[in-house]
Amino acid sequence: MKICVLPGDGIGPEIMAQAVRVLNALDLQFEMEEALVGGCAVDATGNPLPEATLQLARAADAILLGAVGGPKWDSHPRNQRPELGLLGIRKELALFANLRPAILYPELANASTLKPEIVAGLDILIVRELTGDIYFGQPRGIELREVNGESQRVGWNTMIYAEYEIRRILRVAFEAAMKRGKRLCSVDKMNVLETTQLWRDIAIEVSKEFPEVELTHMLVDNAAMQLVRNPKQFDVMVTGNMFGDILSDEASMLTGSIGMLPSASLNADNKGMYEPSHGSAPDIAGKDLANPLATILSAAMMLRYTFNQEAAAQRIERAVKKVLAQGYRTGDIYEPGTKRVGTREMGDAVLAAL
Amino acid sequence: MKICVLPGDGIGPEIMAQAVRVLNALDLQFEMEEALVGGCAVDATGNPLPEATLQLARAADAILLGAVGGPKWDSHPRNQRPELGLLGIRKELALFANLRPAILYPELANASTLKPEIVAGLDILIVRELTGDIYFGQPRGIELREVNGESQRVGWNTMIYAEYEIRRILRVAFEAAMKRGKRLCSVDKMNVLETTQLWRDIAIEVSKEFPEVELTHMLVDNAAMQLVRNPKQFDVMVTGNMFGDILSDEASMLTGSIGMLPSASLNADNKGMYEPSHGSAPDIAGKDLANPLATILSAAMMLRYTFNQEAAAQRIERAVKKVLAQGYRTGDIYEPGTKRVGTREMGDAVLAAL
Ligand SMILES: [Mg+2]
Ligand SMILES: [Mg+2]
Repeated sequence: MKICVLPGDGIGPEIMAQAVRVLNALDLQFEMEEALVGGCAVDATGNPLPEATLQLARAADAILLGAVGGPKWDSHPRNQRPELGLLGIRKELALFANLRPAILYPELANASTLKPEIVAGLDILIVRELTGDIYFGQPRGIELREVNGESQRVGWNTMIYAEYEIRRILRVAFEAAMKRGKRLCSVDKMNVLETTQLWRDIAIEVSKEFPEVELTHMLVDNAAMQLVRNPKQFDVMVTGNMFGDILSDEASMLTGSIGMLPSASLNADNKGMYEPSHGSAPDIAGKDLANPLATILSAAMMLRYTFNQEAAAQRIERAVKKVLAQGYRTGDIYEPGTKRVGTREMGDAVLAAL
Repeated sequence: MKICVLPGDGIGPEIMAQAVRVLNALDLQFEMEEALVGGCAVDATGNPLPEATLQLARAADAILLGAVGGPKWDSHPRNQRPELGLLGIRKELALFANLRPAILYPELANASTLKPEIVAGLDILIVRELTGDIYFGQPRGIELREVNGESQRVGWNTMIYAEYEIRRILRVAFEAAMKRGKRLCSVDKMNVLETTQLWRDIAIEVSKEFPEVELTHMLVDNAAMQLVRNPKQFDVMVTGNMFGDILSDEASMLTGSIGMLPSASLNADNKGMYEPSHGSAPDIAGKDLANPLATILSAAMMLRYTFNQEAAAQRIERAVKKVLAQGYRTGDIYEPGTKRVGTREMGDAVLAAL
């Protein structure tokens, strides 16, 4: 079990340190090797994704990432943008499946803008296709065309999916559903878009390989409504890149506590990159203030999806639940009456609760 | 001021009767003429949009519609689907601008799944482009192509906007903002989609014609989050057909009371079709149970946007607020401690409050 550890920028190193402590406390044999990515890699090598990092990422089974970026690199040339480090790894390893849980621990229900009875205990997983769809489709552009008898600018993009792209993301989603509540909702706009008519047809075909999973379909506008009306009706949702972009962000905001949300990006061999959904928070970097739980929960996702170590994944998740029940809170999730702790102290609490 | 009145199917005739009573109680000179559309038109003529109805709609300044459809016509051939009546009018009159308010009266705040302090008093207007974008773009389809050395199905659609389409919907949105809080948020995905890069460029150009309106921009995934996090930050939002489909439904669900929401579809001359956001509710049709307020509020929108009768529009809206404050509720918005009334009694209350 080889892990490429990429702490990155801002709060990345602090939160990663706690996740590594938690992993080391499990009785599992990991080989962990650390490398530079993002702004710190630009500073050291001029390249947000140095060749040495890419080689390590290729050789590893999983990549655990902290966060990248910060104002320090905003003025650098475009080819030195820290985010290019992540995009490069995604592309190189063909990480086409983005898994975004939206979980709201009952203890944090006050953080949501929704009523506690609607969201407390929320636990849904959104599976978003990450390498296709209209975000990458060709042709695309802006050009002058003859319209209504005059020359006008016209902008266009192409939504496009081939059968194999839809099939492989649906398999990931069905497999994720098998590891959870065995209910999968596929989101499309089949009444208007042929691309998503094909999506629905293939979803129905792939469902025959997973007879235990209950497959339902929902139109994307209705899905955006249902996430507000009754989000707990969902177990796993799967959709294309663009709809997934919108719905996964909407779902994460339902929890009101984005500092708690992990994510995964997988390829066809279940090799994956795992990272918190939040950013590098340069304003609090190095101050022992950051919430390490999303990174720790990302490590749990790694155990589940890449290493198939369900028991160890649950051990971490139970420990996180326990520290919340014990009242430990970093600043981002603090409420009066709870115990405010720093990054390291939160790591200590999780270790103690393992 | 010529109004084509189309009661339609299901609860349509009942709710329309109350809206017509309210319009007649204003001291304005309307010419109203009624016609058939939808299922009732199919029953009478075999056509969901009879030629006589279309002629009346063309000759009128505004169309006030109840609702169409019901299980009765589900088994009819495709060219007799009741919805074709609406689509036909939209197309014939080039109604490209869909205005969807999301309003939550403080008295109904409990109906929302969001906390009252987040949504009570919500009053936003979403302006959605209705006749272009990926829902109509060519080319589109599903076909077999050579992919990865084998023949696979591929599905594709084309997102496309010409300059004039973007310019005219933005003008409608800026004009709507001038009639409200003078703040307009244009929603796009300019960091990834060229079509919406053009959208943003033109939004900035059109904003020069409306120096009093504060224009901001937001990416669609962030907009889906912000509607959950803090919906009251918005005044008017404007976006394309697909993003508008998703965001307007999400926003309407924030209110928890879709029986209260009107809508408008306008063309370049401010001619428009006005209708409640809800459907024809065949299960309660003819029972004096339906909520007529969305239709009455649609009539207020008609006064504002087609007839430029702002004072009369506000007179109706104030009357609706008053009957809610007085505790009148139809079944869909009833709570213990309020006065449950029927369709006609609700109409009486609005008339008394005018
Ligand atoms: Mg996003
Ligand atoms: Mg819709």
